[in-house]
Amino acid sequence: MGKYSKLDLTSITNHNRINVFNCILEGKTINRSVIAKKVGLSIPAVMSITDDLIEKGIIYAVGKGESHGGKRPEMLSVVPDRFFFIGVDVGRTSVRVVVMNNCRDVVYKASKPTESVEPDDLIGQITEMTMDGIKEAKVPDDKIVGVGVAMPGLIERGTGRVLFSPNFGWRDVPLQDKLKACLPFNVLVENANRALTVGEINNMQLKPTSCVIGVNLAYGIGSAVVLPNGLYYGASGTSGEIGHIIVENHGAYCSCGNYGCIESIASGDAIARQARIAIDNKIQTSIAEKCGGDLKKLDAKMVFDAAKEGDSLAQSLVKKAADYIGKGLAIAINMLDPEQIILCGGLTLNGEFFIDMIKKAVSKYQMNHAGRNVQIVVGKSGLYATAIGGAWIVVNNIDFLSDN
Amino acid sequence: MGKYSKLDLTSITNHNRINVFNCILEGKTINRSVIAKKVGLSIPAVMSITDDLIEKGIIYAVGKGESHGGKRPEMLSVVPDRFFFIGVDVGRTSVRVVVMNNCRDVVYKASKPTESVEPDDLIGQITEMTMDGIKEAKVPDDKIVGVGVAMPGLIERGTGRVLFSPNFGWRDVPLQDKLKACLPFNVLVENANRALTVGEINNMQLKPTSCVIGVNLAYGIGSAVVLPNGLYYGASGTSGEIGHIIVENHGAYCSCGNYGCIESIASGDAIARQARIAIDNKIQTSIAEKCGGDLKKLDAKMVFDAAKEGDSLAQSLVKKAADYIGKGLAIAINMLDPEQIILCGGLTLNGEFFIDMIKKAVSKYQMNHAGRNVQIVVGKSGLYATAIGGAWIVVNNIDFLSDN
Repeated sequence: MGKYSKLDLTSITNHNRINVFNCILEGKTINRSVIAKKVGLSIPAVMSITDDLIEKGIIYAVGKGESHGGKRPEMLSVVPDRFFFIGVDVGRTSVRVVVMNNCRDVVYKASKPTESVEPDDLIGQITEMTMDGIKEAKVPDDKIVGVGVAMPGLIERGTGRVLFSPNFGWRDVPLQDKLKACLPFNVLVENANRALTVGEINNMQLKPTSCVIGVNLAYGIGSAVVLPNGLYYGASGTSGEIGHIIVENHGAYCSCGNYGCIESIASGDAIARQARIAIDNKIQTSIAEKCGGDLKKLDAKMVFDAAKEGDSLAQSLVKKAADYIGKGLAIAINMLDPEQIILCGGLTLNGEFFIDMIKKAVSKYQMNHAGRNVQIVVGKSGLYATAIGGAWIVVNNIDFLSDN
Repeated sequence: MGKYSKLDLTSITNHNRINVFNCILEGKTINRSVIAKKVGLSIPAVMSITDDLIEKGIIYAVGKGESHGGKRPEMLSVVPDRFFFIGVDVGRTSVRVVVMNNCRDVVYKASKPTESVEPDDLIGQITEMTMDGIKEAKVPDDKIVGVGVAMPGLIERGTGRVLFSPNFGWRDVPLQDKLKACLPFNVLVENANRALTVGEINNMQLKPTSCVIGVNLAYGIGSAVVLPNGLYYGASGTSGEIGHIIVENHGAYCSCGNYGCIESIASGDAIARQARIAIDNKIQTSIAEKCGGDLKKLDAKMVFDAAKEGDSLAQSLVKKAADYIGKGLAIAINMLDPEQIILCGGLTLNGEFFIDMIKKAVSKYQMNHAGRNVQIVVGKSGLYATAIGGAWIVVNNIDFLSDN
């Protein structure tokens, strides 16, 4: 078969069932004839699907709605506690866990410092925090659809194997298999930038018609590309490496082995590193006081705080970072002409002035006439965005509505 | 309806009909049971489709094939002259026309110098060359599915309006509507880089599973991105502007209004321009002799020829161009991790040494571990590649197999 994709009745049935469910989820309380209109199906077709979903306990009849002339229609809603989706954000400094219910509401969240970067220790921590979360949220095991684990680095698609994670110093760790051995659930390991972006897109209820790019401005800089039919991976799963676009000839050395990458100048790690070098070189700056003279404690947030207070070194570092990020976004716009760019990650929490600087840089470097419709927005899910994204990876990849 | 896409029986029927037809086209001579296996349909389902295609004169029974135990099976082939697709390449220096038959063979081609860049004059030339081609190829009007016109610049999707074409100095020319008024056929105007890429992909029988990027290295530099379901446009139709990625801070002025774009250094126009400036500045080079001292006649090919003969200025210009192009491709690989990059356009006809230089530059700038599966190849369709692409735009966008 290979290149000739097949469409059959099962694909139609599943497609329509998902549409009807999502329509109820979005409508919160909705009747069958409105559903039929929205999804473009006949009322009998909608009835057959909703009957099946009611029988499975996935939706329920909440009562009668208002009459618009005829009988009062039966209103339908999603059963919140029919399914649960667990999301885990495996970060360099914290591990975060969320439990999301069938209405896509977060019913539990927890965060703990990352205890170790050693694979087995970290897997132990993930397992413990996941099981604790399920217990505290009082979720029965058989209602858990799966656990979505968001992990920084290069993840092999399908197997969830960590091929390379510079932040953790991992090479070739079969994380998904190892977690499956520890947890009695479906486990999906996904790249953290992809999970984060999927989470933000779903929380913002965006439906990409061309493409949406989520950019994670954090300890490192990465991105994910989402097309109308879902996440874009690329031929070897490495798409979205916006942080490793080279924007400076003979620039700073980058952990990827090249010089002058955006990440080597504009990431949280790079901003802090440059401040440390400046202080080492006796540049006058209030950043030195913020870390109490201990350069090891100096982080990007201190640089941003000093910039807001008018410190000139801090301002120039922040401005340079914004300029480089803007260049990267302009390149993404020239190539992909996305409808939205969602800026996420720790650096975006430093205030609107940084976002404004980035936007200014984008318009400086963007090609005239290109990307006329792009909107640059800031993610809305806060500190738990990546963990929530992990839960959405489960929603989007495990078929829990059909019988299979 | 909007966000809830509908799948119904008609979509299945059309999808399967296209699969069966393409299977016959690809197989050249093929029997129904092989088709059924390849497209994943039952033999009766295949029979119903092939009966319909035979009745419409689109395919025919060529005779009996070899027996594999049972009855000798009836072999099917595509009727070559049932449909024709016209492609037009509107270039800055030449206009090219091809006629492609139902077997996707080019049965006619012609090229003439571009007489004028004034819209109405050029529309006159396109019309005349198209009608001449149809006459010379002896194609009856009612077998012509449409005319696909490949035009450089920013084309509005759907309307085929030229929003901006720097090469022609056009702004807001309703080219598709104007051509429809002159030609008694369906007319589709498409961006030339997109047409070129679609043509090459089809001629190479590629079926993208992640993405294929076609890069047009010519008078200007552009690209097109093709996903599994076809051309990627972007939110405002401007995707693929790889030539306007800025790779040099404070670089050369570019026609787009920015400085240091790839196109400002590495396009055919830029290579020639830089050689002219060097000669003006009394740099010793054999390029001066190649244009007979007339700098207006100096073009990129002369620079490449001089480079092959060992001229050091020419070699440094070619090397710099390859380096910049390599940087752009490395960026595209970091962001999109494509399965193939197809290098097309006039500059690629200057020999393998230039392609090798580009590939070396790519591996220098590409992120380690990223794009492990990317293949960089050179287009195979030659001078008529863009015109052939225009014909493929018609194949891919007009439904000529079903009754509608």
